[in-house]
Amino acid sequence: MSTGDWSCPVAKYSSDTITMSHGAGGRLSAQLFDEVFAKNYPSPELMAKGDSAVLDWTAKDRLAVCTDAFVVQPLLFPGGDIGKLSVYGTVNDLAVQGAEPVALTTAWILEEGFPIAELAKLANSVGQAAAECSIRVVAGDTKVVERGRAHGCYIATTGIGRLGPSVNLSPQAIRSGDCVLISGPIGDHGMAIMSQRSGLQFDPPLLSDSAPLHRMTLELVAKVPGLRCMRDPTRGGIAASLNELAAACGLCFEIQEASVPVRPQVHSACELLGLDPWIVANEGKLLAIVPPDEVELALEILRSHSIGSLGAKIGTVHNLYKGLVIARTLYGTHRIVPMPAGELLPRIC
Amino acid sequence: MSTGDWSCPVAKYSSDTITMSHGAGGRLSAQLFDEVFAKNYPSPELMAKGDSAVLDWTAKDRLAVCTDAFVVQPLLFPGGDIGKLSVYGTVNDLAVQGAEPVALTTAWILEEGFPIAELAKLANSVGQAAAECSIRVVAGDTKVVERGRAHGCYIATTGIGRLGPSVNLSPQAIRSGDCVLISGPIGDHGMAIMSQRSGLQFDPPLLSDSAPLHRMTLELVAKVPGLRCMRDPTRGGIAASLNELAAACGLCFEIQEASVPVRPQVHSACELLGLDPWIVANEGKLLAIVPPDEVELALEILRSHSIGSLGAKIGTVHNLYKGLVIARTLYGTHRIVPMPAGELLPRIC
Repeated sequence: MSTGDWSCPVAKYSSDTITMSHGAGGRLSAQLFDEVFAKNYPSPELMAKGDSAVLDWTAKDRLAVCTDAFVVQPLLFPGGDIGKLSVYGTVNDLAVQGAEPVALTTAWILEEGFPIAELAKLANSVGQAAAECSIRVVAGDTKVVERGRAHGCYIATTGIGRLGPSVNLSPQAIRSGDCVLISGPIGDHGMAIMSQRSGLQFDPPLLSDSAPLHRMTLELVAKVPGLRCMRDPTRGGIAASLNELAAACGLCFEIQEASVPVRPQVHSACELLGLDPWIVANEGKLLAIVPPDEVELALEILRSHSIGSLGAKIGTVHNLYKGLVIARTLYGTHRIVPMPAGELLPRIC
Repeated sequence: MSTGDWSCPVAKYSSDTITMSHGAGGRLSAQLFDEVFAKNYPSPELMAKGDSAVLDWTAKDRLAVCTDAFVVQPLLFPGGDIGKLSVYGTVNDLAVQGAEPVALTTAWILEEGFPIAELAKLANSVGQAAAECSIRVVAGDTKVVERGRAHGCYIATTGIGRLGPSVNLSPQAIRSGDCVLISGPIGDHGMAIMSQRSGLQFDPPLLSDSAPLHRMTLELVAKVPGLRCMRDPTRGGIAASLNELAAACGLCFEIQEASVPVRPQVHSACELLGLDPWIVANEGKLLAIVPPDEVELALEILRSHSIGSLGAKIGTVHNLYKGLVIARTLYGTHRIVPMPAGELLPRIC
């Protein structure tokens, strides 16, 4: 078993200025969070490091709150655009916390010279996606910066959701023996963006998986009593999400490489571009950790939703190694799956 | 009385691309909101056009929610920085809705090459300002864009506040005969930024008024039963805020020019740069509309806070003209105060 840092040639890169890697959701992002943000405002909600923060609002009532900035390039990509992505991404951060999405805020940073017709299309996209998710856009802001000081437009969103009284999902609930499920093939979003950027074409075309997960997650929450934890593996792919979970619960995640669904086009695109689908971003995929006796029930629920029809069990949790993610390869060997260090696909969401 | 568009030479400028004016909080910002955003996601909360949205959360409980993107240049200015500004600005949007600030989210968009030491200072500023306002930073996000695709850093925030059961402030509550109060001298923030940009120096120096208003507003809410409505006159200055209020309640705001406090340095700087202090941004000022018999009480409360020590009554509301803001000048004449059209001071917050 090699501990080599196979996926991250820039792992030891350190710098006194911000690099693209600091925004890529991997090790440098985590370091920046710990050393800069958490140090200066370490609220208990922030330090829980969930996809959403959980706020005790009244004695009986809790809120889930999440925030995201979207800077994806290009703004329109096969299977979506920054408007839809910003709504679905926010809905998904609430969804994986087990919350019902209720309200959304959108702050737009526009570049001088951005076509208003294009902005109107993106705003329409936001409106449609919000309606589809039954979430209301309740507040907004718009700022304009000089030509060249943005890249068309950026959108920052915050989501507010309602948490049922008995919902308590967290990595700390994960136990040795639990199973790891995924709702479908990985890497679609990242490779759709990447193929658009590189001018690669595939037949059938590579489309982003950008989609809202809340209907599926709310059903899991309602019907799978042992549901431990869920994650939305975006920046950094499943490698980053699994490593975060393993670090948070101190257990080992052993994933069967052959069980992880990857579309043939994504596989080919990754081979062409020298990328590992495990570290490529998704925008409509769910990782769920459930006890072994509820795997069949959970898979049935996943597969009853069109976005989860290719759902699969991909691994198990055990306590042989602490906080590691291990892949059992197609050849029967093991390898450590490290936290991606930096950017292989910047500006992906 | 002239209806001339004295403050807005670009009033009739129309375009099919985004201009700096669309982000300046005046007429073009309002038009963009109506024609692009409100058209595509017209939730009742958004259409109320308050500084915060009010959400019915449970049968007994309401939330106030606001969002803002901060793109101010320079990032550090006399009297503050973008970190403090982003916290105070968010707190103030909650405060003028009568809410108690509870939670904050921060999404950072960083430019590649931004010094991490500078980021740490700004994050420290956010942490200190949040602690000062007893508001917790509960969720965050960080994205990085390529060199030149931002301007150092942008911060998007969302604030969540608690609204007391009997708090119902809105422009629709304003009645003919009501009085208009301001908590202190106007234009300090805008002119501090502008003097920094232009290299102008004043003795005593011009400092931003950036400050949190919530202690003052919560006391007003608790002790002034007839309090109608409050506003935080930021982008577009008191001219924009008063015009928004006048349009929303359909009454006329008549302001005594001589009663509006303006510091001598701000007055001089405005004269030098050809600006009108009424359209210059503030970041720690409060406009409050109260019934005439509660003016003394409200002023007493304003003046008991250091940030409101120069509070004054600046005008009255009547129904002689619909939806207009009128200034009674130093010479005893009247002039219409129009909604500022576009940017005189872009990137001010």
